[in-house]
Amino acid sequence: MADSSSCSSRSTFAVMVGLSQILGLGSVVLIGVWMGHYHGGFAWDGSAYQFNVHPLCMVLGLVFLQGDAILVYRVFRNEEKKNVKMLHGLIHLLALVVSIVGVTAVFENHAASNITHMYTLHSWCGIITLILFFSQWIMGLLFFLFPVASSRLRAAYLPVHVVCGVVLLVMSIGTSLLGITEKLLFSILTTYSSFPPEGVFANILGLVLVSFGVVVGYLITKEEYRRPPNPEELSLSVHFKTLTETGSPTTP
Amino acid sequence: MADSSSCSSRSTFAVMVGLSQILGLGSVVLIGVWMGHYHGGFAWDGSAYQFNVHPLCMVLGLVFLQGDAILVYRVFRNEEKKNVKMLHGLIHLLALVVSIVGVTAVFENHAASNITHMYTLHSWCGIITLILFFSQWIMGLLFFLFPVASSRLRAAYLPVHVVCGVVLLVMSIGTSLLGITEKLLFSILTTYSSFPPEGVFANILGLVLVSFGVVVGYLITKEEYRRPPNPEELSLSVHFKTLTETGSPTTP
Repeated sequence: MADSSSCSSRSTFAVMVGLSQILGLGSVVLIGVWMGHYHGGFAWDGSAYQFNVHPLCMVLGLVFLQGDAILVYRVFRNEEKKNVKMLHGLIHLLALVVSIVGVTAVFENHAASNITHMYTLHSWCGIITLILFFSQWIMGLLFFLFPVASSRLRAAYLPVHVVCGVVLLVMSIGTSLLGITEKLLFSILTTYSSFPPEGVFANILGLVLVSFGVVVGYLITKEEYRRPPNPEELSLSVHFKTLTETGSPTTP
Repeated sequence: MADSSSCSSRSTFAVMVGLSQILGLGSVVLIGVWMGHYHGGFAWDGSAYQFNVHPLCMVLGLVFLQGDAILVYRVFRNEEKKNVKMLHGLIHLLALVVSIVGVTAVFENHAASNITHMYTLHSWCGIITLILFFSQWIMGLLFFLFPVASSRLRAAYLPVHVVCGVVLLVMSIGTSLLGITEKLLFSILTTYSSFPPEGVFANILGLVLVSFGVVVGYLITKEEYRRPPNPEELSLSVHFKTLTETGSPTTP
């Protein structure tokens, strides 16, 4: 009975991880098709084609890669923690680089086209998210990959790091939805209400992004998918109960 | 040492709850001022003034009241569970009624002004959120307030109910941000880029809503603010470990 339950739990986990990848990759493909098919493709010449690089990079970097960087702690929960940490940091680094390219694309496009920078809610949320994402990455590097802080500080920071990671993923998805709405209203304001293919297509992309967030959220909050405690790691790592006075150890 | 730590934890909790109320009430006041001062106030006559009821009710119902309905499990964590459950259900009922008024306002305004219904990403996300919110309320009523399901089913549904509640609050805040962006682009498209007071005001409202979500998220995910286990309740309620085969009991 316990075996069959554990087997069913593993199957559900595999299905949900597969679904997360379909939704995540799906959103990257959909944003690429939207910018490629409906807005003429990509370039790096300050034109509107350079703008198109922005949504593609942000969805790829801050949504899909950031989501996957978080998921590695669930997918590889039986692998050596040091390696998983390294992979987590590397995918986040990739997400950061891709996002910086995406933000550069829109700033250069705005400068070339004399469009005011940073006046919309999307841009305010986006820049806050990117700054916090960068800070979170630097803090993660200092605290966990090349630990310079004391064990006590690291143990105290770990739950903050975990919660901030989830908040950042949610903020990234929310900011993407704001970007979709802005792009639609700037491009097809007068025809949007007649359900043109581009409007429906972009709305569906929005729902795919929300679904990605929900599936990733499910996988990272479900107790039984957490990394199982490993006595050897516990004795070496910061996740040791006696290091914190108030609570139980938290595994990201 | 333990006493001083517990006292500091209680102070932090009180400050964060106070902050959540300032941000939540602040967002209701800000949306009221936006619609009242910049868009002429409120009415129920099919006009644009009726539209103004929509954002006010949605922020009040689906954001502030929903957030507070969730928070009662933390704020009253030492009160009798039955009463807290009742309060949780009642505030959610109020949130539901206010939200239905808000949705009716916009549907009637669209019908009176010959505006197409349900074509934007905001409307798609909004209607999905409201339907799920209604379903979640009905399920909560059947499972926890007037339990018709077996104890085993209730124990299995509890973590789903908790996660769905958080997802719904996040979706409500995200949908509000989409609504803010839509309203700004429909109203001040040509002047938004010159940082007019209305644009800056509405952007700040967006950030206040995000901050409310982050503070409520912090309060409901922090382990030490959870309802402490009560042996008497455990023996009577569905939160009994042996009822679930796989995991530990989850307190909302």
